[in-house]
Amino acid sequence: MSSERLIYLPLGGAGEIGMNAYVYGYGKPGKERLIVVDLGVAFPDMDGSPGVDLIIADIAWLVERKDQIEAVFITHAHEDHVGGVAHTYAQLQAPIYARKFTANIAKRKMDEHGHPDDAVTVVGAWPEQISAGPFTVGFLPISHSIPESSALVIDSPEGRVIHSGDFKIDRTPGVGEAYDPELWADVCKDGVKALVCDSTNVFSQDPGRSEATVGPAIEELVSAADGMVVATTFASNVARVKTLAVAGDKAGRSVVLLGRAMKRMVEASLETGVMKDFPNVVSPEEARGIPRENLMLLVTGSQGERRAASAQLARGKYQGIEMKEGDLFLFSSKTIPGNEKGVIRIINQFSERGVDVVDDSSGNYHVSGHANRPDLETLHDVVKPQVLIPMHGEHRHLREHVKIADARGMTGVLAVNGMMIDLSGNQPKVAEYVETGRTYIDGSVQIGALDGVVRDRIRMALNGHVTVTVILDDEDEPLGDPWVDAMGLSETGKSGAPLVDVLEEDLSQFLGRSKAATLRDDTKLNDGLKRVVRQSAQEEIGKKPEVTVVVSRLS
Amino acid sequence: MSSERLIYLPLGGAGEIGMNAYVYGYGKPGKERLIVVDLGVAFPDMDGSPGVDLIIADIAWLVERKDQIEAVFITHAHEDHVGGVAHTYAQLQAPIYARKFTANIAKRKMDEHGHPDDAVTVVGAWPEQISAGPFTVGFLPISHSIPESSALVIDSPEGRVIHSGDFKIDRTPGVGEAYDPELWADVCKDGVKALVCDSTNVFSQDPGRSEATVGPAIEELVSAADGMVVATTFASNVARVKTLAVAGDKAGRSVVLLGRAMKRMVEASLETGVMKDFPNVVSPEEARGIPRENLMLLVTGSQGERRAASAQLARGKYQGIEMKEGDLFLFSSKTIPGNEKGVIRIINQFSERGVDVVDDSSGNYHVSGHANRPDLETLHDVVKPQVLIPMHGEHRHLREHVKIADARGMTGVLAVNGMMIDLSGNQPKVAEYVETGRTYIDGSVQIGALDGVVRDRIRMALNGHVTVTVILDDEDEPLGDPWVDAMGLSETGKSGAPLVDVLEEDLSQFLGRSKAATLRDDTKLNDGLKRVVRQSAQEEIGKKPEVTVVVSRLS
Repeated sequence: MSSERLIYLPLGGAGEIGMNAYVYGYGKPGKERLIVVDLGVAFPDMDGSPGVDLIIADIAWLVERKDQIEAVFITHAHEDHVGGVAHTYAQLQAPIYARKFTANIAKRKMDEHGHPDDAVTVVGAWPEQISAGPFTVGFLPISHSIPESSALVIDSPEGRVIHSGDFKIDRTPGVGEAYDPELWADVCKDGVKALVCDSTNVFSQDPGRSEATVGPAIEELVSAADGMVVATTFASNVARVKTLAVAGDKAGRSVVLLGRAMKRMVEASLETGVMKDFPNVVSPEEARGIPRENLMLLVTGSQGERRAASAQLARGKYQGIEMKEGDLFLFSSKTIPGNEKGVIRIINQFSERGVDVVDDSSGNYHVSGHANRPDLETLHDVVKPQVLIPMHGEHRHLREHVKIADARGMTGVLAVNGMMIDLSGNQPKVAEYVETGRTYIDGSVQIGALDGVVRDRIRMALNGHVTVTVILDDEDEPLGDPWVDAMGLSETGKSGAPLVDVLEEDLSQFLGRSKAATLRDDTKLNDGLKRVVRQSAQEEIGKKPEVTVVVSRLS
Repeated sequence: MSSERLIYLPLGGAGEIGMNAYVYGYGKPGKERLIVVDLGVAFPDMDGSPGVDLIIADIAWLVERKDQIEAVFITHAHEDHVGGVAHTYAQLQAPIYARKFTANIAKRKMDEHGHPDDAVTVVGAWPEQISAGPFTVGFLPISHSIPESSALVIDSPEGRVIHSGDFKIDRTPGVGEAYDPELWADVCKDGVKALVCDSTNVFSQDPGRSEATVGPAIEELVSAADGMVVATTFASNVARVKTLAVAGDKAGRSVVLLGRAMKRMVEASLETGVMKDFPNVVSPEEARGIPRENLMLLVTGSQGERRAASAQLARGKYQGIEMKEGDLFLFSSKTIPGNEKGVIRIINQFSERGVDVVDDSSGNYHVSGHANRPDLETLHDVVKPQVLIPMHGEHRHLREHVKIADARGMTGVLAVNGMMIDLSGNQPKVAEYVETGRTYIDGSVQIGALDGVVRDRIRMALNGHVTVTVILDDEDEPLGDPWVDAMGLSETGKSGAPLVDVLEEDLSQFLGRSKAATLRDDTKLNDGLKRVVRQSAQEEIGKKPEVTVVVSRLS
């Protein structure tokens, strides 16, 4: 038996839906040559990551092995797969491979961050292959809710691995390539060692519906509308954007694109040729001169994002356009868990304006981009892998997918982030547990999720903050009274007096009764002052604030 | 025409689902005698109200008219209807009327807050009536997801108003009273001026299902389970709690109640006699000696609340009990929008333990407590009001309900919080706009939602916080260097040096180049120091923190 091995290591995406980052390696243990599949982002929220801009997987393990990395392959242009390429490029400096549309988006990101866009190389579809150390890698087209999504065919001396990327089984996807069962059967005919497989919709029991099925319902809705029609969907769902635009066009409406991402995605699709025959669009300025019943706006913000075009239209005028009584707003999208409140907020704002909102509760105006359970089984059947490793899912999705694999005669492996799987030989095994986590892009810096920075922000949000300033003279005696500032706390409490006055009084008394040994000792004094603030605030307003103590010694 | 008028004024609950608080008045304008219907709470979240404990409607308008208030009536014991009685009692000091079960819960709240529990008077069901100034008020039983939910029959010289409370049309509710169409027809036979009506499920097109329909599915699930079964639902849904307990009992399992609310609600139901024949329960201590396949736990935390029993079991041992591979966890509940992430978190934690989780995606294990659209129409038809005023809904629900009313020949009135409606005469009209809002229960104090306190917390959470301390001598010259403390910010930034060092250096330079006029002027100096911190942090880490400046003058 060779001492070389084939490894699979998820750093992100196996245990959550988001921040995908997978590693494959081949070579002697510890000396494997590595390839990285996808470098995506996840999105922060107030609950767990307030103030953070973006979240990426902790790539410390990769950075330590920078010299072993042959290449990065990006399966498709969704943010949770491509969003981290520019943020990680300085640390990894590995060549990036992607198909034309994905590369177009990746290069824009590299440009924005001042990185060379020629670090991104455009690769054609299978049978084209890239050689990357011991690996050869090809992009096998598959349908998804963005053009040119591809599975990766990863060959190594240990055999062929198929990394599905995100996919659905769609033979009429509108824009982009259809699922081609003959092509897939041909690629997999000589045996596949492992299928690393999307698990997002594993709990959806019905076969997924084609993108082509939403067109007629949307056209009917738009043609029956009296006022202005505004529709939102993920901008990257170029097929849907086109379906919406065509529906507007057929109803004799001028099409307007609103929102940066909407314009960028349409532009990238046309530039790269993945989309053709997009209806003419007019600018928001031109739209102002067109009767509202002749307008169809396609806008960003399907998830209720506060700054997106949808939310701005819900609040008032956006680029000179305002929605009114009798207009129609269509969510041609599904709300991602966690975004419900934002979406509901704008629906209510539209309601206040008399705008009728149609969402996907009827099931007619949106289809998912991921394979449902029967479609996963379709892929299992065409790939016929020995081993199935679910990815792109929370723990519950991965576990369910493993159960399905085991029930259908494959070896299912539940590998979460940090679990390195040795795929060599006949039985996959856990080779190692690697420390993983999340890195926050915060302003212009990166911070570790467990650094305590965000924990402190959350504490200030929950408890408020008090600053205490004390000046001691050269004999360690208090000079004047302690000074208190409070932020995020009630101005008055139980006693009716201002909270800061109560705290200052209690701190004065504490200093008055403190022994010289305490006043001389920074740690003791700090701890004592903090304790007094927290106790006193607890009595006065029922909260224990975060406290910053500044002791200035004139000595 | 009389100069007296009948008014309706929602202070909370008309524009949101939560913090219900409605006012009716009768008398000369400005001198109306008032009754209050429900005093509920809403729940805070990190997005909008971090650190807050509970939210109630701003009752300033009522407090100013304290002497005009005759009584408070509570329709049922859900927190969004009764949760605010104790928090507002000191300010309103009006007698509180409720039926036995609701009063039991209300009295417990009064006790906990040190208020006299005899302020709460128990009222029997219709035809019993309470006289309250110009009003007589009766509690008309109707089914809901809690025992003894009642509509209010509010009579005044201007005629009869029916305030529906929360309801569903259920003739087999399990625990509590069934909807009785004959009784309702009798009460409404002489004409109803206005129906103020629950709107929660106005978008649900199918007739609602009875509580009785979930029993068989739950019994089947529980009897087929191999390991321990744990189920969660709203504790106040006493009928469901009983259904679950009976399912366990029938399957030969000992029933355990976990969580304070679960025990309190079962206790209150038995005490007041609204529930009978509850299976025997065993304590968690006793449960430890019983084989896991013979246990059925009923636990709090259907919404994924971090401190509830469900979340604790998901994380590990709770009261000596631990869930294991092969156990079953049942959500006999629906996730309220906004709580998805918390619920998904515990589902994944259970998945990691090998626990199978069943939720209501099949529709078999839960039914709603609110009337769907056809059921709303059933109530409209029996009440036959001249005017329909939707309540208990977001704007979109109220608007939809008004559309239905208008289409069905009633006069629909869209009245949101603060809109006082004059119901006298033949056509309802807006009498006045009253300032309303939200009051936060924060620790032991109340703060206004717009006081800026919570806004500051959110800003600290998003931007971090910096404290700057500067000491000036008696000639207004800086004594030593400025001192910087940072909380919730990256320790280092672009330059690689500690952030606080960079800020201190930039502040020193600012002080060095400041003119005497600036150093003498507190406002100028403060503004300058803040500006330097924000600019310098922006350059170094790409964030503009909140800043507290403390300037100490030794002069």
